[in-house]
Formats: sequence, structure tokens, C-alpha cells
Amino acid sequence: MPSRERSHSLGSIAERFGGELIGDRNISITQVAPLELAQPCHLSFLSQPKYRSQLEQTKAGAVIVGRESRNLTSLPRIVCDDPYVYFAKVSAFLNPAKTPPPGIHPSATIAASAQVPASATIGAHACIGENVMLGERVVIGPGCCLGDGVKIGEASVLHPRVVVCHDCVIGDRVIFQSGVVIGADGFGLAMDEGRWLKIPQIGRVTIGNDVEIGANTTVDRGAMGDTVIEDGVKLDNLIQIGHNVRIGAHTAIAGCVGIAGSTKIGRYCRIGGAAMISGHLQIADNVTISGATGVGKTITKPGIYTSAYPCEPHHKWLRNVVHLHHLHELAKKIHELEKQSKKPKRKTK
Amino acid sequence: MPSRERSHSLGSIAERFGGELIGDRNISITQVAPLELAQPCHLSFLSQPKYRSQLEQTKAGAVIVGRESRNLTSLPRIVCDDPYVYFAKVSAFLNPAKTPPPGIHPSATIAASAQVPASATIGAHACIGENVMLGERVVIGPGCCLGDGVKIGEASVLHPRVVVCHDCVIGDRVIFQSGVVIGADGFGLAMDEGRWLKIPQIGRVTIGNDVEIGANTTVDRGAMGDTVIEDGVKLDNLIQIGHNVRIGAHTAIAGCVGIAGSTKIGRYCRIGGAAMISGHLQIADNVTISGATGVGKTITKPGIYTSAYPCEPHHKWLRNVVHLHHLHELAKKIHELEKQSKKPKRKTK
Amino acid sequence: MPSRERSHSLGSIAERFGGELIGDRNISITQVAPLELAQPCHLSFLSQPKYRSQLEQTKAGAVIVGRESRNLTSLPRIVCDDPYVYFAKVSAFLNPAKTPPPGIHPSATIAASAQVPASATIGAHACIGENVMLGERVVIGPGCCLGDGVKIGEASVLHPRVVVCHDCVIGDRVIFQSGVVIGADGFGLAMDEGRWLKIPQIGRVTIGNDVEIGANTTVDRGAMGDTVIEDGVKLDNLIQIGHNVRIGAHTAIAGCVGIAGSTKIGRYCRIGGAAMISGHLQIADNVTISGATGVGKTITKPGIYTSAYPCEPHHKWLRNVVHLHHLHELAKKIHELEKQSKKPKRKTK
Repeated sequence: MPSRERSHSLGSIAERFGGELIGDRNISITQVAPLELAQPCHLSFLSQPKYRSQLEQTKAGAVIVGRESRNLTSLPRIVCDDPYVYFAKVSAFLNPAKTPPPGIHPSATIAASAQVPASATIGAHACIGENVMLGERVVIGPGCCLGDGVKIGEASVLHPRVVVCHDCVIGDRVIFQSGVVIGADGFGLAMDEGRWLKIPQIGRVTIGNDVEIGANTTVDRGAMGDTVIEDGVKLDNLIQIGHNVRIGAHTAIAGCVGIAGSTKIGRYCRIGGAAMISGHLQIADNVTISGATGVGKTITKPGIYTSAYPCEPHHKWLRNVVHLHHLHELAKKIHELEKQSKKPKRKTK
Repeated sequence: MPSRERSHSLGSIAERFGGELIGDRNISITQVAPLELAQPCHLSFLSQPKYRSQLEQTKAGAVIVGRESRNLTSLPRIVCDDPYVYFAKVSAFLNPAKTPPPGIHPSATIAASAQVPASATIGAHACIGENVMLGERVVIGPGCCLGDGVKIGEASVLHPRVVVCHDCVIGDRVIFQSGVVIGADGFGLAMDEGRWLKIPQIGRVTIGNDVEIGANTTVDRGAMGDTVIEDGVKLDNLIQIGHNVRIGAHTAIAGCVGIAGSTKIGRYCRIGGAAMISGHLQIADNVTISGATGVGKTITKPGIYTSAYPCEPHHKWLRNVVHLHHLHELAKKIHELEKQSKKPKRKTK
Repeated sequence: MPSRERSHSLGSIAERFGGELIGDRNISITQVAPLELAQPCHLSFLSQPKYRSQLEQTKAGAVIVGRESRNLTSLPRIVCDDPYVYFAKVSAFLNPAKTPPPGIHPSATIAASAQVPASATIGAHACIGENVMLGERVVIGPGCCLGDGVKIGEASVLHPRVVVCHDCVIGDRVIFQSGVVIGADGFGLAMDEGRWLKIPQIGRVTIGNDVEIGANTTVDRGAMGDTVIEDGVKLDNLIQIGHNVRIGAHTAIAGCVGIAGSTKIGRYCRIGGAAMISGHLQIADNVTISGATGVGKTITKPGIYTSAYPCEPHHKWLRNVVHLHHLHELAKKIHELEKQSKKPKRKTK
């Protein structure tokens, strides 16, 4: 963790973010830290009472705790409803995103018709196409490439080496990590006399406000109509979003997930890492998909959904898994045994 | 969808691509669109009779239908054998790929020994190594990097930020989407006294004609001998192809698939998203692998192959999955019960 | 395989790397090759006796064999303990990594405060941030981007288009293939009144010596504290390593694996392709995880661990898989049948 010089009193933090302050309000805080790594200049937090043993041993100068944990420590503390959210706010306050100074690096190549406000930052070797429109305070990292006609809203940040293909539309305060590719052609093919014909992908990608997309994630442009990522969606690394997918607002998707073409994901869904969702499905709002789960059917009700063969020592797996190939026969045998076990009874009556 | 100005009469389309035209041949078509989004200037298509309710409600000016759907609508229509293929051809006609003007961007760096024909396009900040040979009308996007000795056939298009490592050979009319990496070292290691030795990866990648590879997909170079992608293969995004894999002609592979080293995939296979294929296997021609399926054994016969625990509500999964660890015991119990149920019967005879 | 001119006598190879030489020590070797592709100028190897039929048919000039295969061939041969390791050493000797000449390409952009030794190579369009420190003989490929404060140890090689984000620390003799992203923000979010708050990711990535990372793999920076990749770790392509993960020394991980945040992997583990490991777990040293296996629980003992529904023809899968949804009921029926089968027996006694 890089050291940061400015310090704040615990009291000033509580004034800014609320909560009940118990103990020394003058204690000086320079950074947030987890309980097990925290030093006296750090503010830490207890997200769940089950970690109370860490709380007992922490060297933190102060902690953020929930109401139920109010009396689990004698450290200076802020008591609040949701310690994790409180911590997130304090951390954002102590660690504001560094924005590079505005200006265009001389090695960048920018089409004459592109609109680049004076408040924007364009990094080295970036490449900005014709008729691109950038909002105020946009940051385009080194090596990024924006195709013709791309629009990016204000205060959005593209880290190094992001590609946004032609005509895609990106909202405000969006963050793309390095290696993201937005608007590559979707996988549209028709088999004609032994050869695949490529179907032109004439839609776009439109991305709402406050979206964050992780490193090397890809979002394909629509075949016809657009691929749509709504406001507040958060995508982790190495995710593949197929053409004409729609992801509802405030849905969060962990790494290595694939979503096949034309599937519609609801709002406030949470999708675990490496989940795989087939094409042309509808997933309702507030659905949670467990990690490594394959979804092959539409889900109409909120709730948690899971698939996955559980992990076990290999020799046990070998012994069990062979029966999966014969489940149908096993079930038939059970049915047969049940019939037999009932017949004699009736006879004996 | 960006508007395109040129329009064509339905009659001229039918003359160009065949099929039986029913209704007003003078209707003016500017673009293709799906049934639910189509407007009167659009030509749409009915790929399967089950979508006929969309056909009833469409605002399309005309539609492409199969022979079995000939009379499902009164709209002007073209009747043909395969509406999806017909649509693909019309869309390609209405939406020709935009090719940038030939020429070398002044910011590109090109080795003196590279052969770049005047008809080629080299984008900004591209980097072309020694002895690279490019075919006529090749397009190298901004930020691409071609290692020494790379050969690329005519009319191939590399979108921004593609890497092709040294000595790899790429065919004609190939398309690489952004972020593709061809010819990185394969994963070749030998454990020697507690340390991994790196095995030099001295093969190449050779890629046939008419291949398309999706965004951020990786194809590793051979350890010894080459990794081979045959003509007409289509790879979606975020796929990993290990060293010395061979993929037969016209096979299509959806996103997030992994194929481990030395596996040979046949021709005309179709591999669903997130399927994982182990190393050193043979997959026959015309095999279909379902999405999210793990293939651990050679497949010698055409057909559809599937694995995957099906998705269910989490509480049901929890209740069911525990028994997977005891399938072996369950099967033994059934066997025991069967033995018992047979013994008394014989006795009673 | 590109031809390489220099040749070595089999005798000189045996002198350099040891082993028992049987047959003509003057035979001239120019390259290594697999048994089935080898020519008379090639040295091949038999890694396992089961490939002996290939040994019988090979055109190789000489072979490396294990002691148990000493007499399986009459070819000139080197007998040793581990033919694969011996082959790896010979191949590394015959195929030394090409290092480009030192120097800074004029199109690279390098911050004034960066330390770049004269022995380092900086490729075209590379971008080196403030206070970056590069070791002797480091190679930074074309289009790479190093954020402010990055440190890279001596003789490390970054292939084209790698990104290392600010403040990350990379060891000696490290290899990053193209498209690698080190130190992008981890996936840290807190839900607050219907919106996700971003939690600043203030840790770093630290990577030990002799680590190799494959194409388009991503390693996220720590939320607080660091993500740590220890010495000798080998990562294949398209792997996602979440924030605050630690990977123990000499662990090897195949392609398409995902490891979620804060999980600690031991030393000398081997993780198969497409395995998915949940967050906040501990995996002991010397654990092998099979390909496509989902790990949802901590593993405390060395050994091989597997999950995965096995692949089968689709119609059989359909017939079997339906019963997975009713395993609980099936198990209950068996239990019931067992109770019944025991009751009557007692009665009949």
C-alpha cells in the first residue's frame, strides 16, 4: 500500500459520514486497512460479527462496526448500519482516483472531425477516429483506440489499451480497465453449402452511466439492434457478452462469465464467476446465479440458482461419477423395486 | 443501427439472390431488420415457423420466408429454401464491409525488410517486423503488432490491437477482431528438481483462408510442429487454443471455449460456449459439443455430446447434490435390494 | 519449424547434459523434434514407454530414452532418468530465446523520471510512466504500457501489448506474453441504497522471480494489501486472478482458470484448465485440481481433486440428467425400501 500523507481525525470522519462515534475523536487516521494488517494510523472495519477474533487482535487505531457489534471492542469506533458501505465511503474519501492533467499527448493521433474538450486527457499513442465525441474530463489512456463515431460521456475513464469500435455509445462516469474490447463483431454466421457466411453486425453497443468493465472483457456489438449495458452495471475481468444481450441496471457479474447472444438479464442480478448463460434467455430481476453455474433455461422468479457437480477427492469422484451414466437405469430399478414391495403387501392383506 | 441511404427494390433483390417474389416488387428496401424492430423500409425474415406471431405483428415492408411459411403472411415476400441464409446474403449486400483507404499511417513503424503492397492499409501506431509479407489489400488496424517473418494473405483484416507473433502464417480473407493474440508461447514445462523448465516453443501458428477469430481470443504457437487452424474456421471471443491443436475446416466455436494442447478437432464441428476440451484428444468430423460441456475423452462418432449438471433453485440443488458424493453407495444399495427381492420370489415358487 | 543452422554432435550434447550415450557419438544434431515428425538431423525423445510404437517408426537421428527403455531401440541414444527434462534442456540449448538489441525505439514515450538501463530494450510505441525502474537487460515489447512507479527486475521480458498498472512490482527473469494485464482494479463493490459503490483498490500486484504469464491473462491489484504471485509460478492464457489472491511458489495453472478474490493457493499445486476456484479459500501445497473442476471449499490435504459431470451422447445425457433433480427423492425411496426389506425379515424369523 503506498503511503498517503494527509491525515484526518476520527471525529472529522464521523462528521462527514455520520454514525455514532465512541472513544477518542482526535485519533489520527491516514488510511483504511483490513483488521489483520491495520496499524494505529489505520481505520479498519468489522463487516460480520464472525470475524470478532480478528477484531480482538487488531492493531488498528479505530474501527467501523455495526450496531450488533457495538460493544465487542474498546477501540475508538464508529457504529453504523452497514460497516462495509461506511468503509467504502471512507476509503473513497481517503483515496480519490488520481486523474492525469488534461491535455493531448503529442504522440496521439486524433481525427480532425473528433470533438475533444480541453478538459479531456488523451494518452500516448491513443488513436481517435472520425466524428468521435468526448465529454468533459474524459480520460483516454495510452494506446486506446476509438473507432469512428464513438461517443463517450463526461468523466469516463478508459485505462490503457482499450478498444471501442465504431459508433458505440458510452455513458458518463464509466470506467473501462485495460484490454477491454467494446463493439467487436458478434458471432453471426449462416451455413450455406458447406461454408459459413458472415452476417454483418450492424448494431452497436450502448453503455449507460456509472458502468465499470474489467480487464480484457469483451462486449460484442449487436447483429441488428444494439447490445445494451444499462446504468450502474459492474462487469469483472474476462467476461464475454454476446451480441444483442441486454444487462439490466445495477447487475454485477464476476469474472470469466459468458453470456450468449440475445439473452436479457434483469436488474440487480448477481452472477457468480465462471457462470455460463445460454442465448435467447430471459433472467428476471434480482436473480442470483452461483459461480460456475450453467443456465440453459429462462428464469422468471427472483432467487438463487445453482448447478455444479461438487468437488471431491479424485478416487471418490471416479467411483461416483460412473453411476451418472446410469441414473436412468438406477431410477427404473428403484421404481421396479417399489412396485414389487407394494404388490406382496396387497396380496398378504 | 446507423441509417444507410441507398435503397433497392424488392424486385431487384429477388433478381440478384433468387427465390419466388410474391407481392409488390417495387417496394423500396434500405436495410434488413428483425421482425420486432423492422420498419416499412426494412426487409425482415422468418427463420422458423414458431416465430409466426412476430410475423403477424411486424411493420416490415417485406419478409423472407421458407416454403412452409409461404402463406403465413400477406406482406410482400420472397419465398426461398433457407430464409436465414437468404437474409445473410441480402445483409452482406446492403452492408458491405467498410475498408479504409490504402496507405501507411505516418505513426506506424515498419521494418525496412517488410513487404507492404501499395493496396494495403497500415493503421496508426502499428508495428511491422522484419521480413513480414503482407498480401494485397490487407488492413492492419491501429496498434497491431506483427512479429518478424509473419505472412498475411490478401484481403485479410486485423482490427485494432491484434498481435501476431514471429513466423506465423495467416491466409486470405481472414478477420481478426481486436485483442487477438496469435502465436504466443504455448504452455510447455518440465519439472526438474523443484523448478519448472520452460520448453522452447519452436513451432508456429498457421491459419487458413476465410478464418474469423473473435476479440481477445488466443492461439498459441506449436511446441514443435505447428498449431493449425484450417480454412473457414470461425472462433468467437475469449477462446484459448493450446499449442499443437488442429481445428478442422469450417468448424465453428463459440465464446469462452478452451482447447488444451495437441487435441485435433474435426471438420464441420460445432462447439458451444464455455465447452472445455482436454489435451491429446481426437474429435471426429461433424461432432457437436453442447455449451459448458467438458470433453475428457476422444470422440470417434458424429453426433451431439453433452455434460453439465442442470441449473436449479439453490435449496433444491443443496438437497440433491449431497447425494452425488454417495452415488456409489446408493447404487450398491439398489443392487442389494434387487438381490433380496429376487431371492424370496424363487423361494415362493 | 524454422530451420536453424548450427549443429552439435550427439557426443557433445551428452557431455554437456550427462546421461549414458549408446551408439554413434558423431551423429550431427540441429534440432529437437517429436518422434513422429523427426528427421535424421533431429534428436527426439521417448517420454513414456507406451509410445514405443512411435519409437519404432521414427526417422530421428537419435533419441533420449529413460533407463527402462534403454533397449527398445537400436538408434543412437542417450539414456537418462527423465527424458522429458533432458529434452527440455537440450531444446533450450538449441533454441536460445532471441533477445532484441538493447536500445529505446524513437517512438516510445518514456517519463523523464523513469530509470531505464542502457542494456534494456524498449519497443515501438511503448509507454513508460513516472518513476518506473527497469532492471538490466529488461525487454519491453512494442505497445506495452507501464504505469507510474512500476518496478521490473532484471532480464524480464514483456511481449507486445502488455499492461502493468501503477506501483506493481515484478521480479527477475519474468516473462509476460502479449495482452497480459497486471494490476487492474479488483472487483470491489458495496451495495448502498440501490447503487454499487466502488471500493478503491489501493493494494498492488507483486510478482516473484521466474514467473511466466500467458496471453491475455489478468491479475488484479489488491483491494488493501497486495495480490502476490510467488517465485516460479507459471500461468497459461486467459486466466483471471482476483484481488488479494496469493499463489504459492512453483504452482502451475492451465488456461481459462479463474481464482476469486482472497484465495490462497499453496506451493507446487497444479491446476487444470478451466478450473474455477471460489474466493476466500485456502488450497494446501501439492494439491492437483483436475480440469473443469469447481472448488468451493478449502482443501487442506495434498492430492487430486475433481468435479465435473462426464460428457456423454446428448440423448443419454437428457435421459440421465433429469434424475439429478430428484436425487433426494431417489435416495429417500431407497432408504424406505431398505427399511421395508429389513422389517419383514425380522417378522419371518
